[in-house]
Amino acid sequence: MYIPTFQNVIDAHERIAPHVHRTPVLTSSYLNDLTGAELFFKCENFQKAGAFKARGASNAVFGLSDDQAAKGVATHSSGNHGLSLSYAAGRRGIPCNVVMPRTAPQAKKDAVRGYGGRIVECEPSTSSREAVFAEVLAETGAEFVHPYNDPRVIAGQATCSRELNDQVEGLDDVVAPIGGGGMISGTCLTLSTLAPGVRIFAAEPKQADDAARSFRAGHIIADDAPETVADGLKVPLKELTWHFVQKHVADILTAEEDEIVDAMKTIWKRMKIVMEPSSAVPLATILKNKDVFRGRRVGVIVTGGNVDLDRLPWMQG
Amino acid sequence: MYIPTFQNVIDAHERIAPHVHRTPVLTSSYLNDLTGAELFFKCENFQKAGAFKARGASNAVFGLSDDQAAKGVATHSSGNHGLSLSYAAGRRGIPCNVVMPRTAPQAKKDAVRGYGGRIVECEPSTSSREAVFAEVLAETGAEFVHPYNDPRVIAGQATCSRELNDQVEGLDDVVAPIGGGGMISGTCLTLSTLAPGVRIFAAEPKQADDAARSFRAGHIIADDAPETVADGLKVPLKELTWHFVQKHVADILTAEEDEIVDAMKTIWKRMKIVMEPSSAVPLATILKNKDVFRGRRVGVIVTGGNVDLDRLPWMQG
Repeated sequence: MYIPTFQNVIDAHERIAPHVHRTPVLTSSYLNDLTGAELFFKCENFQKAGAFKARGASNAVFGLSDDQAAKGVATHSSGNHGLSLSYAAGRRGIPCNVVMPRTAPQAKKDAVRGYGGRIVECEPSTSSREAVFAEVLAETGAEFVHPYNDPRVIAGQATCSRELNDQVEGLDDVVAPIGGGGMISGTCLTLSTLAPGVRIFAAEPKQADDAARSFRAGHIIADDAPETVADGLKVPLKELTWHFVQKHVADILTAEEDEIVDAMKTIWKRMKIVMEPSSAVPLATILKNKDVFRGRRVGVIVTGGNVDLDRLPWMQG
Repeated sequence: MYIPTFQNVIDAHERIAPHVHRTPVLTSSYLNDLTGAELFFKCENFQKAGAFKARGASNAVFGLSDDQAAKGVATHSSGNHGLSLSYAAGRRGIPCNVVMPRTAPQAKKDAVRGYGGRIVECEPSTSSREAVFAEVLAETGAEFVHPYNDPRVIAGQATCSRELNDQVEGLDDVVAPIGGGGMISGTCLTLSTLAPGVRIFAAEPKQADDAARSFRAGHIIADDAPETVADGLKVPLKELTWHFVQKHVADILTAEEDEIVDAMKTIWKRMKIVMEPSSAVPLATILKNKDVFRGRRVGVIVTGGNVDLDRLPWMQG
């Protein structure tokens, strides 16, 4: 297992700069009043392909040799990594194969195809995804770019908190959603070098709290096909992300489904930005744990904005 | 009739700076490809109180003498001006009375009350609004701040295009929605001084096209209670806004209801910003008139983001 270093982050940042946005940081006086903290929202919903995953995917794709690249890339993904890899492969002009659950939002499938990716559908479970994916790899000879358990991907995601640390002076805490742990691992990698005093919190849906249980147990616990509105956060930790989580994360906080939907709607209403349910989990946990963050300067990673506008969660029930 | 000057705009900008945001300009490579133009979206949906109207309202409120201010302010408004005036009055700590149609979106009523404004309801027609409003003025002695036919308001709105002109080099055109014409008049006032070569287009719903018909007829035509999804654009021109429209506007373009809703959804989906139907009318007209804008650098005023998230227009039909 290769553990990426901060030099890998610097290299990644230079490599991906032509292909991704330096996203803005937004604030909301309403949400500051509501939480008692100063929140700085790093808006990766404005990122290319609509999510931070364009960073890691671009680092992997543009780091390939020409020979490797000619055979294309492949991945399995509940959504944003698949379309980000399609985006990056499209920029380089190489093929991209994406194994996705047949239940993934239509908006995400359309977006993958819109960037030129080929979708191969599987059942919505980790076990089915891995089986179908093995067939795709054997058939194409494509380079596997894992959604998060890949040092190239983590070094790419790590560029996000490097920008945040430049954009906001004197951060006390950073809160990011955790699914497989790619964003959190990148955040740990960057901040443990640049700002080791910053506390890093992971935020997770209670209904898919395998990372929180892993954190307390001291070893990886994986669930098969948990159900949550935060559909980007269903996947389990792997050894590389577990390395960063157990070493650098201060705590993993959880929120209930209705709390996530309320936080999402509040952000849309007051900040006027479109973001997906996964991205609302940090605010939901901050609102539940005001004493942890009161009076502090808190970076919040808004991880993505790819949501099916015809199926908004507060309009279904 | 006092016609505001560019010196009034400079004074307004200094007066309102502590109370409003210098909003960002966003771009979208997807929308540039789709239109064949380079679009620069001036995001007043991120403005205080969620709309550009905070500029004009703040200029009016903070320009009052202490004696005038003590009696408070009053207005009639289909929504955003009412809540912006409530916002500005709240910042100064004076009373604000708002006459609103009973059919106005609940989100806008809640927002007015949230800023401390008092709502007096009327029927959804210009005639009813004016009758109820006369009673309110007589009762309170408050200072009337008209939503648009007021030189203080127009000078305030004019600060928006002053920022846009600073933020984007070499603008060829600006497109803004037109209802009563306050934003368009402010745009004319600023650009006729700072960048007289820039073409100014007004964008209007076909179902509330009184401004377009006025423009062709050469005199003001007013409709009573037109119906359109772009609920901020139902009001007619008045003499002060007509002055600027007939003098400086290149053309008034119109769009159908479904074109407005499609443009709105496209902006939400691709730009990840929440904006209201009125703000989508410019893009709807650009998409209908690609030859007019092809290859040009076009500023687009995103006028506001106050939308009822429980009643999105693409989910009602």
